[in-house]
Amino acid sequence: MELFVPATFCVPEIFLDANATTPVLPEISQLMEDVCCAQFGNPSSPHLAALTPKQILDTTRASALALFNHPPGQIIFNSGATEGINTAVFSVLQAHLGQDCTGKFLLYGATEHKAVPEALKYWNTVLQLGAQLIAIPVDSRGQLDLQFLGEHVADALIVCTMGANNETGVVADLPALNQCIRKASLRVPWLMDCVQVLGKVPLDLTAIDVDYATFSAHKLYGPKGVGCLYVHEQATYSPLTVGGGQEQGARGGTENVAGIAALGRIFQWLLSSSSDLGKGPFASMTKLQNYREQLLNALRVLFPNLALNQPYPDSLPTTLNFSVPDFSSAQLISMFDAAGIRVSAGSACSTGKPKSFVLDAMGLPAWQSEGAIRLSFGPATSAAYIDSAATRIRELAKRVNAIDPTLRGLLVPQPTASNFTVYAVKDAERAQLYVFGHQDDHADWLAGNFPTAVWNYIDTHELTIDDWHLSRSPDQAMSITNRRTGRSVELGINGVSFTETEKQSVDVIALMDIQADVDCLVDVREPLETAAQPIIAPFHHSCTASRAEWIRFLLSLPERTEGRYVTICRSGGRSSVIAALAAKLGAPKQYSAELGVTHLLQKVICSKA
Amino acid sequence: MELFVPATFCVPEIFLDANATTPVLPEISQLMEDVCCAQFGNPSSPHLAALTPKQILDTTRASALALFNHPPGQIIFNSGATEGINTAVFSVLQAHLGQDCTGKFLLYGATEHKAVPEALKYWNTVLQLGAQLIAIPVDSRGQLDLQFLGEHVADALIVCTMGANNETGVVADLPALNQCIRKASLRVPWLMDCVQVLGKVPLDLTAIDVDYATFSAHKLYGPKGVGCLYVHEQATYSPLTVGGGQEQGARGGTENVAGIAALGRIFQWLLSSSSDLGKGPFASMTKLQNYREQLLNALRVLFPNLALNQPYPDSLPTTLNFSVPDFSSAQLISMFDAAGIRVSAGSACSTGKPKSFVLDAMGLPAWQSEGAIRLSFGPATSAAYIDSAATRIRELAKRVNAIDPTLRGLLVPQPTASNFTVYAVKDAERAQLYVFGHQDDHADWLAGNFPTAVWNYIDTHELTIDDWHLSRSPDQAMSITNRRTGRSVELGINGVSFTETEKQSVDVIALMDIQADVDCLVDVREPLETAAQPIIAPFHHSCTASRAEWIRFLLSLPERTEGRYVTICRSGGRSSVIAALAAKLGAPKQYSAELGVTHLLQKVICSKA
Repeated sequence: MELFVPATFCVPEIFLDANATTPVLPEISQLMEDVCCAQFGNPSSPHLAALTPKQILDTTRASALALFNHPPGQIIFNSGATEGINTAVFSVLQAHLGQDCTGKFLLYGATEHKAVPEALKYWNTVLQLGAQLIAIPVDSRGQLDLQFLGEHVADALIVCTMGANNETGVVADLPALNQCIRKASLRVPWLMDCVQVLGKVPLDLTAIDVDYATFSAHKLYGPKGVGCLYVHEQATYSPLTVGGGQEQGARGGTENVAGIAALGRIFQWLLSSSSDLGKGPFASMTKLQNYREQLLNALRVLFPNLALNQPYPDSLPTTLNFSVPDFSSAQLISMFDAAGIRVSAGSACSTGKPKSFVLDAMGLPAWQSEGAIRLSFGPATSAAYIDSAATRIRELAKRVNAIDPTLRGLLVPQPTASNFTVYAVKDAERAQLYVFGHQDDHADWLAGNFPTAVWNYIDTHELTIDDWHLSRSPDQAMSITNRRTGRSVELGINGVSFTETEKQSVDVIALMDIQADVDCLVDVREPLETAAQPIIAPFHHSCTASRAEWIRFLLSLPERTEGRYVTICRSGGRSSVIAALAAKLGAPKQYSAELGVTHLLQKVICSKA
Repeated sequence: MELFVPATFCVPEIFLDANATTPVLPEISQLMEDVCCAQFGNPSSPHLAALTPKQILDTTRASALALFNHPPGQIIFNSGATEGINTAVFSVLQAHLGQDCTGKFLLYGATEHKAVPEALKYWNTVLQLGAQLIAIPVDSRGQLDLQFLGEHVADALIVCTMGANNETGVVADLPALNQCIRKASLRVPWLMDCVQVLGKVPLDLTAIDVDYATFSAHKLYGPKGVGCLYVHEQATYSPLTVGGGQEQGARGGTENVAGIAALGRIFQWLLSSSSDLGKGPFASMTKLQNYREQLLNALRVLFPNLALNQPYPDSLPTTLNFSVPDFSSAQLISMFDAAGIRVSAGSACSTGKPKSFVLDAMGLPAWQSEGAIRLSFGPATSAAYIDSAATRIRELAKRVNAIDPTLRGLLVPQPTASNFTVYAVKDAERAQLYVFGHQDDHADWLAGNFPTAVWNYIDTHELTIDDWHLSRSPDQAMSITNRRTGRSVELGINGVSFTETEKQSVDVIALMDIQADVDCLVDVREPLETAAQPIIAPFHHSCTASRAEWIRFLLSLPERTEGRYVTICRSGGRSSVIAALAAKLGAPKQYSAELGVTHLLQKVICSKA
């Protein structure tokens, strides 16, 4: 029996998360291969195999300095901007070791990438300085409060700002910053995180008098794990790694020559495009702005009521940040993901955080911060790619608009986290919502799905309806029984007690091993995901269950005489939780599909086709 | 006019410096390309593009732990062993910040890679601990003095040892070390540098109770700039970089996913070869020992009197370390280089150091330490590669043995560094050596080239002979004049005064632009290099000059009516010095050939053929 995969699954990935990372361009990959396999010498060796690697270091260094307009400092190659930030912070702070720094400030922009405050906090603690971390506020447009900065900079050990924000694309007003910082204090150490600004806005390090500037190759079509740090000649410097004397002693360890070659090619492209020679893969600012506009127009078809979370157009022309009323970031990301479109909520390094501290700092309403979607593309994106992205978004709009938003029957929003349950009955005559447990903890979910204008809320402790019997005892435990199958579950105060071991014990099945004409597929993705990428024939035995309906499915499923139940979700995470719960509750034998529907169907099976 | 390149130049490179670095194997390069271009997601992203990168991290981590026999600790990915060493040293030492560590020891093996003592020294200074660095002595076989270690370990803040030495290949007696360290002190932090031992000798981290172990991918066919650090679960740990929470907070910064994928493939190969499944590219110990024997036999044809600087066979089967009486490391490296064979004197990180501290620590005579050659190959080397290397060495032996070792005429060993000069006259009747300046400073050179058993030394202050007039004034300045061309030079006490600007002003010509039938090629390489790779037809106008004869050439060369003089050496360094000197001394116009003969002829012109 072979698994037939419907064409709808075979959507090529559209990657719109370039602020998190970018693919390595084929030309750069080829260059890296040549360096790795042919020009692989150690730059420190005494023989000829060292010559080309040495030249690669020299050329890249020279290109970087030329690109930044020959500022008075040096370029130190490293593993990327996080290392650069830590090196700069350590360099500045270690010079104060043994001093009492109480009353001194470590200033950073409130919307900095979190690596900056984390590094400040860490080194301040490790070196036992006792200085005070202070976030410089930003206004509603994401710009630093210069008056605040001016008032605090004289007592600052360091000032950390960024060229462009990774979440909103807000481009800092660098001349104003420069004047504010340098007017107040001639030589307070100034670190600028240039990761997002490079390649999108010209960067002249002679026009702004920074001490440290950080760069990562993987944000601009280079590989992960390489970058560089610019250090002004008057800035203090202390390496984080010493050893073989590489980088003139500024960073020990054999250099990442292939990565540095990649960086060099990127710098050369940027140099040639900045002088308008038309070389290299990077598009002009105007073109990038048009691309963004095109995507925004498509998104407005999908969500006519979307709100922009950024000063548009005063932000990077490659970044969109928006929110949609009544949708969380996680819901939207899953939906886009199911449609093959990769977007994020904000920084990849802040994945899992419920809201955006960047948007909070800008004073945006909570719903915008909690629902933010960042959509970003790199400056080498082609018009054809943007076209296909816009088309995909418009197709998605059609499917999403066809969803029936009304939930019905038994709904348990967080069966593994709480004992809150509702039963919804809606027909021509009535819209009754029987509610078990405290509404407060689920106010958002209730408001989103059951507006009080439509639904009649009934608090209750016992209910027998359709196949179900529900009861809630005085000690808060809840019992849910399916009268037809006889299966039931007890929800404690924190939901079903459920150990990691129980989760690990689940049988996992590779998607390719599912027997489409025998097994029963239980799709447990969110409604938006299922809409974005429906499971269709030949999965005749498939049924869908959103998160709120897990328990219902587990208790309702009849025993099967042939084939297995296979829970399936996006990545294999939720589906294995449900399969494990099923085992615990005595439901028919269930398997979890390894890695989930979207991933494997797109990556493995489609590549076979 | 086209440059015809004699076939002798077109020798493919034979790389025998694997302890410095290795090429990336094609299969690994292909894997990296796939990761860089297709599976390029940021492992921290919330969408599906993160899944494969995440799996790569997980799989590599699991493979590493399996390879080391599931020791009780974690694997942290980083940029390589130098970062690992610094992280371990920092972790241990920062815990003592603010304490008076006078009287406490930082112990390290006397033959450690210099990154270890450098890191100890650096962090001891930066953190103001005041502990005492102590090198644990080694015996003549390179093994640590366990009695010394046992006597000092109780007062040690850290003990640093290595699995196998990078210069000599000496494999540490790990069970004895483990017993010594753990018997004396249950939990003194123990760092082991495993860079050279991995892949050559099995490594079981449950059999030895180390706290930290460091690894670099580029020593074993992976890319430069990636590695990992093993940290025992009971070991103290403090990151050097914090930021986005990667590596469970142990190392901030987006992971080098392609590099980690490469590392994973290497670990998997090692795992399969250790279980004798015959998979992967690595040869057995026996085969590697045979390879080394084959190379040693060839080397003994070239230098019958070579002396081994290592306990053979109690060292890595992939490393040879030897010296040849009367030859310096630099001379031998240049000779091998000219023959297309890349070897080194020792650690790439110690290039330029006049002698080996490793061999010194083992108590070897100075001539062995100063003349050491390390020849090393990786465990994936093929029999055919070793065959071609052995053949190349035997061919080289024929050419080198044909050199007439007798130097004649005016010889100025270091015209830019001293004012020492000799004039050698040897024919059937006499062997007179006229000596200007202090013999003491050039005793080795004189003894090597002009044994007193053959030559009659005559100290002098003035000499007129053949075309030359030489005179040395009471204030030590020396004048050398060519009576035929009328050109002369003054050597001050430190030789010809010569600025970097003058050196930079030299005209450089690309080798491909030399007009072979018009220009005159002045080959200024060492005699051994010229023998290893002679410049033959069509360079009719070529003449050779070893370093000792530079001045003679500059003063003797007649004006040319057509074509240029082009100085040529190995890498373009020496040739540009000589071309600049020529300009300064009023010699006919000279050019330096860019990058030197071996490099460009092999890399560029041969690739055209």
